[in-house]
Amino acid sequence: MKHFFKNNVSLQDVLTTINIHEESTDHAPVLGVSTLQDLDEGLIACLHNHQYVDQIPAHGKGIIMTKPEWDHYVPSGYQKILVDTPYRLFASILSHFFKKDRHCSISPKASISPTATIGKDVFIGDFCVIGDGVVIGDGSYIGHHTVVESHVIIGQRCHIESHVSIQSAQIGSSVTIKNGARIGQGGFGFHMDDKGPIDVPQLGRVIIEDHVMIGANTTIDRGSLENTIIGKGTRIDNLVQIAHNVVLKDRCIIVAQVGIAGSTELGEGVVAAGQVGITGHLKIGKGCQIAAQSGVMKNLPDFSVVGGSPSLPAQKWLKINAMLKKMVSA
Amino acid sequence: MKHFFKNNVSLQDVLTTINIHEESTDHAPVLGVSTLQDLDEGLIACLHNHQYVDQIPAHGKGIIMTKPEWDHYVPSGYQKILVDTPYRLFASILSHFFKKDRHCSISPKASISPTATIGKDVFIGDFCVIGDGVVIGDGSYIGHHTVVESHVIIGQRCHIESHVSIQSAQIGSSVTIKNGARIGQGGFGFHMDDKGPIDVPQLGRVIIEDHVMIGANTTIDRGSLENTIIGKGTRIDNLVQIAHNVVLKDRCIIVAQVGIAGSTELGEGVVAAGQVGITGHLKIGKGCQIAAQSGVMKNLPDFSVVGGSPSLPAQKWLKINAMLKKMVSA
Amino acid sequence: MKHFFKNNVSLQDVLTTINIHEESTDHAPVLGVSTLQDLDEGLIACLHNHQYVDQIPAHGKGIIMTKPEWDHYVPSGYQKILVDTPYRLFASILSHFFKKDRHCSISPKASISPTATIGKDVFIGDFCVIGDGVVIGDGSYIGHHTVVESHVIIGQRCHIESHVSIQSAQIGSSVTIKNGARIGQGGFGFHMDDKGPIDVPQLGRVIIEDHVMIGANTTIDRGSLENTIIGKGTRIDNLVQIAHNVVLKDRCIIVAQVGIAGSTELGEGVVAAGQVGITGHLKIGKGCQIAAQSGVMKNLPDFSVVGGSPSLPAQKWLKINAMLKKMVSA
Repeated sequence: MKHFFKNNVSLQDVLTTINIHEESTDHAPVLGVSTLQDLDEGLIACLHNHQYVDQIPAHGKGIIMTKPEWDHYVPSGYQKILVDTPYRLFASILSHFFKKDRHCSISPKASISPTATIGKDVFIGDFCVIGDGVVIGDGSYIGHHTVVESHVIIGQRCHIESHVSIQSAQIGSSVTIKNGARIGQGGFGFHMDDKGPIDVPQLGRVIIEDHVMIGANTTIDRGSLENTIIGKGTRIDNLVQIAHNVVLKDRCIIVAQVGIAGSTELGEGVVAAGQVGITGHLKIGKGCQIAAQSGVMKNLPDFSVVGGSPSLPAQKWLKINAMLKKMVSA
Repeated sequence: MKHFFKNNVSLQDVLTTINIHEESTDHAPVLGVSTLQDLDEGLIACLHNHQYVDQIPAHGKGIIMTKPEWDHYVPSGYQKILVDTPYRLFASILSHFFKKDRHCSISPKASISPTATIGKDVFIGDFCVIGDGVVIGDGSYIGHHTVVESHVIIGQRCHIESHVSIQSAQIGSSVTIKNGARIGQGGFGFHMDDKGPIDVPQLGRVIIEDHVMIGANTTIDRGSLENTIIGKGTRIDNLVQIAHNVVLKDRCIIVAQVGIAGSTELGEGVVAAGQVGITGHLKIGKGCQIAAQSGVMKNLPDFSVVGGSPSLPAQKWLKINAMLKKMVSA
Repeated sequence: MKHFFKNNVSLQDVLTTINIHEESTDHAPVLGVSTLQDLDEGLIACLHNHQYVDQIPAHGKGIIMTKPEWDHYVPSGYQKILVDTPYRLFASILSHFFKKDRHCSISPKASISPTATIGKDVFIGDFCVIGDGVVIGDGSYIGHHTVVESHVIIGQRCHIESHVSIQSAQIGSSVTIKNGARIGQGGFGFHMDDKGPIDVPQLGRVIIEDHVMIGANTTIDRGSLENTIIGKGTRIDNLVQIAHNVVLKDRCIIVAQVGIAGSTELGEGVVAAGQVGITGHLKIGKGCQIAAQSGVMKNLPDFSVVGGSPSLPAQKWLKINAMLKKMVSA
């Protein structure tokens, strides 16, 4: 597909965006961006993985951003922008030229407590509910139908989409929360004995640090006595379950439909692939990588790479899979 | 259970509904439908699987729809409607006689942009938000609290329930979307390197073709540069995750809690049972059948039948399971 | 963490709450509760698992609730409350002293049918939609943005949070439903044959008995011809899928992201751990325990303990896992 810029943009404008200040030799307009296969005159595409070289058409029309060491993969005819981090800079170009117009307005149809403190340049959508004592920082966007219960604090430049519920939470700056996420409800806290179940009131909060992203329909429960904490820069995909008292340190990547049970702690930079389950009360060391659908039932030392359910070191898991296949093929 | 018709209905009325135009020999009223075990005078039940023969009471009162070749399973006394596709026709009877009254009204409590185009006989519920340039086709139903963001196009006779979020999407005709589904938010698109995460803006859309059904709290992300596409007649259950750029061809069946990662393509008529996970960037051939909880990590040729995580041909997977059981029983 | 009471509370007040009527020897105020590690002067913490003994600080300041037989674990200096069920009674103390103030008010911004019957001391939040013929019992709380479709019946003292959708349902008393749960939409009911898919209208309801708790973004479909039933005291966590016609008997525990397919029945007190999948049309006996991520594909007799996918008796499953690990380590 091709995506065209709305305004007139020159190659020099594009280069300035990514902090390349050499004078451009070409003043022809840049019309937009495209995938490699749809590349054409005036468009920029990004070759960020050399496996995709086959997708580049032979016609040689357009501009390709890639790494200096992949220069030779690019067929003749194309203009090139050679940079060390092509995907990062391509993302910057998209962010700059396709920035969404944001109206800074507060819907008269929202229900906003007179004791809430709303910053400058804030958008609050139709039918939002903003409770007593809520604080919303400058430049934040609160989508239609979002409910922010009393005393929640939201930082600056947050982007909170529609139909989100937030209670018992403190949210940093530049946080994105997508449609229908549920933040801060009481967790699965009850005590079951011969006398039947009794609910254990949940008193902790959810602390979401700066630059976190939370996917659509994901659920993050408030802590019981402690807090549930989502560290700086962590990315959480759709339909993920984060139970009470879980701590995710900075820059974790939690893919869709993962479930993390109560009081488990993930170190910095842990990657949990899709549909992983992690038992409660565990410590997962920093930099661990957990293959899709794994079930982690034990503590993991730093930088472990595991797979399977129950999970094993990845090499052992691959070996078992290979062995079993062989045994039934014999 | 028994479900009674609200109006007076004769057997002839019932037969007309399913295009049987022979004159009915019995003019007694038909009172409603029931399960086989609750069948009684004046009720119709459907025997669509001969395993359920035991559920038929011995009393012989009522009407049974079934296949001609199962005629001999039906105890004496029952009136019979013998047709080749009993379940399909039983469904038609339910559709016809239990049709929901639909008020074609537009709530004065909805927030509707003056630039939206609303067709004839449309229902828009309380507190809906309909954005700029939205088009809603004739006869469509938009449940309470649903948010349709600007420039979304919705076809005719769609049934969209409550609390749904729709953005960056084009929706065909006769599409059903259930409560709380999230359509068209940005996907899990970011680039993580030594400098930390950077978001990659998502520019594609979600294209939903005619006769698709999407379950409650399911999430379908917009494409990044390409579109996410859900083909004609495809059925998606609750709590399913469809990532950016996924393509589902026509008549796929995606059961609850399945997750399909980015850019994967499913051919026509693929069946993914509950909690299946499919890795990104794969091609799953048409007619493939994927057993519950399988983890598909490789391309599959047409009509593959697989199970296990990582998935294997189903026969191999069953053989491994049997072998392992035997090994620990010895 | 420490959580302080809002009012002045004495030790005697605390003991009265848990029905200990001996005269307290200490009239010093109790300031609040804490975790074991944050225990301090005037605070109460609960030692409900002797594995947590290490968390008790050495300083001896504060009050510890525990079992009489764990008395010797408590370092000297601490005041003690010795009771047979410390966690249950600690929960009672939290419930009593941290009770949420509930305003019994009906928002003028809600859309309430004139034919709905609303009990005494009911809270209805902003932008709720309450349909024709709905009944809401005394003391129930309906959070902002919740939609209760026509003819739904809700008992007394229910706590229904924000953004919930309820239709075709009958709900008992003291039921909790958390943010974004979807109750009573039509299930995954269609018939697919050579002629393509045809929807099967769903006519059953969802019956939720007393003291049930349902988690955030969980989906419970209405029955097709029968009802979907959730028995008394059952606890369901977040993001769980309960398909049409499922019956959960009393006091089941269904952990996050479990999926239960159509018409399956769970006996009393079944525990399904996180991400379990259970196939349709099964009978799971009472008291069964199903390990996390298991896939249950056969009926289970009462008190079965199973693990694995497909599931096996837990001992066999553990034996297989141990054997495989050994085979690749050799």
